[in-house]
Amino acid sequence: MKIAVDAMGGDFAPKEIIEGIELARDAYPDITFQLFGRTDQIKKYLHNDTRIQVVQADEVIEMGDEPVKAVRTKKQSSIVLAATAVKEGTADAFFSAGNTGAILAAGLFIVGRIKGIDRPGLTTTLPVINNQDHKNFVMIDVGANADTKVLNIYQYALMGKYYAQNVLKIDQPRIGLLNNGTEADKGDMNHRKVHDLLAADKDLNFIGNVESRELLNGVADVVVTDGFTGNAVLKSIEGTALSMLKLIKGSIMSGGVKSKMGAVMLKSTFGDIASSMDYSKYGGAVLLGVKAPVVKTHGASKAPTVKNTIGQIKDIIDSKMIPQLNDYVTDHAEELQQIKDSIKSNR
Amino acid sequence: MKIAVDAMGGDFAPKEIIEGIELARDAYPDITFQLFGRTDQIKKYLHNDTRIQVVQADEVIEMGDEPVKAVRTKKQSSIVLAATAVKEGTADAFFSAGNTGAILAAGLFIVGRIKGIDRPGLTTTLPVINNQDHKNFVMIDVGANADTKVLNIYQYALMGKYYAQNVLKIDQPRIGLLNNGTEADKGDMNHRKVHDLLAADKDLNFIGNVESRELLNGVADVVVTDGFTGNAVLKSIEGTALSMLKLIKGSIMSGGVKSKMGAVMLKSTFGDIASSMDYSKYGGAVLLGVKAPVVKTHGASKAPTVKNTIGQIKDIIDSKMIPQLNDYVTDHAEELQQIKDSIKSNR
Repeated sequence: MKIAVDAMGGDFAPKEIIEGIELARDAYPDITFQLFGRTDQIKKYLHNDTRIQVVQADEVIEMGDEPVKAVRTKKQSSIVLAATAVKEGTADAFFSAGNTGAILAAGLFIVGRIKGIDRPGLTTTLPVINNQDHKNFVMIDVGANADTKVLNIYQYALMGKYYAQNVLKIDQPRIGLLNNGTEADKGDMNHRKVHDLLAADKDLNFIGNVESRELLNGVADVVVTDGFTGNAVLKSIEGTALSMLKLIKGSIMSGGVKSKMGAVMLKSTFGDIASSMDYSKYGGAVLLGVKAPVVKTHGASKAPTVKNTIGQIKDIIDSKMIPQLNDYVTDHAEELQQIKDSIKSNR
Repeated sequence: MKIAVDAMGGDFAPKEIIEGIELARDAYPDITFQLFGRTDQIKKYLHNDTRIQVVQADEVIEMGDEPVKAVRTKKQSSIVLAATAVKEGTADAFFSAGNTGAILAAGLFIVGRIKGIDRPGLTTTLPVINNQDHKNFVMIDVGANADTKVLNIYQYALMGKYYAQNVLKIDQPRIGLLNNGTEADKGDMNHRKVHDLLAADKDLNFIGNVESRELLNGVADVVVTDGFTGNAVLKSIEGTALSMLKLIKGSIMSGGVKSKMGAVMLKSTFGDIASSMDYSKYGGAVLLGVKAPVVKTHGASKAPTVKNTIGQIKDIIDSKMIPQLNDYVTDHAEELQQIKDSIKSNR
């Protein structure tokens, strides 16, 4: 398989991206890479070009660029060229640590939607804490769309199911709708409609509404929500975890000798915690609903995270989840159209 | 001042409620209380009825009751009778640890809205972590309304400002709009409209959009958002904090002697953390936009939290924030109506 890589995106690009790709190349002998970016800069950091092709991209989409406009006008940017390689079939997946909006726009407009999926959704894998039976869960959408309709959230459940089944290897993923209470009639009118649509679909293991308080306890394997709420919840979880780690550190540092000795004795405990909360080990955020894997890792990613994310892309491709999702949507086109019509007539 | 108390609401009612009220009675000599509930049960736990009047309520609104219906039909419930005492002016504020929806409905339908406020919003005070300059912040709405319009969020900013100024004693509270990015054009169309309305209001110290990742860092003193997102974010923060505390505990318990010794040495650190994250010390959630303080504390509250919440109600009353908000809305009725009209004509 071949992965198209935006070598210029991310806070530590191109250095950490290239080092990560070299780690991935060494770990996965069946992957070849295309690195898009400024050839002279890339060559400075590339130690060994076995299975790594370097492709010149004259432009770079910066973090501050307006995403849709940038993808339309910077035709020679590393993001646009990498996504175009996927569209044209010379690469199987697209990876970047750059401007999130531009990656989503490139996924949507260049790689293209799966026919039958109205809006792709961005999904992230998060850890489950203190639960022997569950290790992690996915949340979709965490920010691809700010304006989300009933049909979109219904389709997120479908996509999330295929992801959890194939990539996280969860047999019958429990799907939960993020809501402000667990009762079936919670939330606004749209949430009630989504709830009823999901409950009526016999192909989905829908467990009802779930609250954000319970997510890290493993209440569901796939948590579906609109992109605005999903983004806010994801960032709340991140922010709270970071604040608590800082709080612990600050309290220890200001706590005198006894406190510092205690911290040394608890070193493995703190290691466990940091490792439990470090979801970069699960890779990046995946834009589901497009024709090939489009995966975005954190802007601050270093080489090991880049390598893990390539491993995740390999899992997505090996599992054939995208062709399977595509087949399901094609085979059920009629039912999906009926659902669409029923939402419209219900307005 | 006189506070009407629902003695029957909460997981540990009436015992912990009554014990908390006795603590508050002893702490605040200028408060008298009316306890609404089953007289025979209340009298079992009431040690000393100085400044505490017991009023019989034949019914109780249970946690599972449908809120609006319960408030309409259970006319003899402790919640309805306590709210009615406020409406009729025989009490100055209403306190309960019971069914949140019923408390909100009683606040809205019995105590009544301030004229000019379209929808009251529920506000919670949360701690700021690792920041010398800021101690806490308020978030509004955390769940009073699932369907929220542009005008409502604009009014939340107004109410939040008065609360932060008078109760948290923050001079010019920095008001932030919760959004999925900090740039002015982030979010859906409604968020952009709210952003522009807030930015145009010279009476508000609006600092722009804020992200949920930054809330505990003290990025704003008043965070305004729709009730659905606010509820999800609040519960994410709670859930993550709880999960991390459990994670630390679990790791220590399974970590052998060295780890347990370390934990003993770090006892004060863990005490600091628990205390920083314990926002029950800030009292309960306040329904802002109604004519008198309507305050809801956590269902699991014990006597000390009940006492703290009564202290918070005293601060609200002493600060005269409600009459001040009322005066502002009355004095600016014309401008507020213009804003309302401009939103309508912009649709």
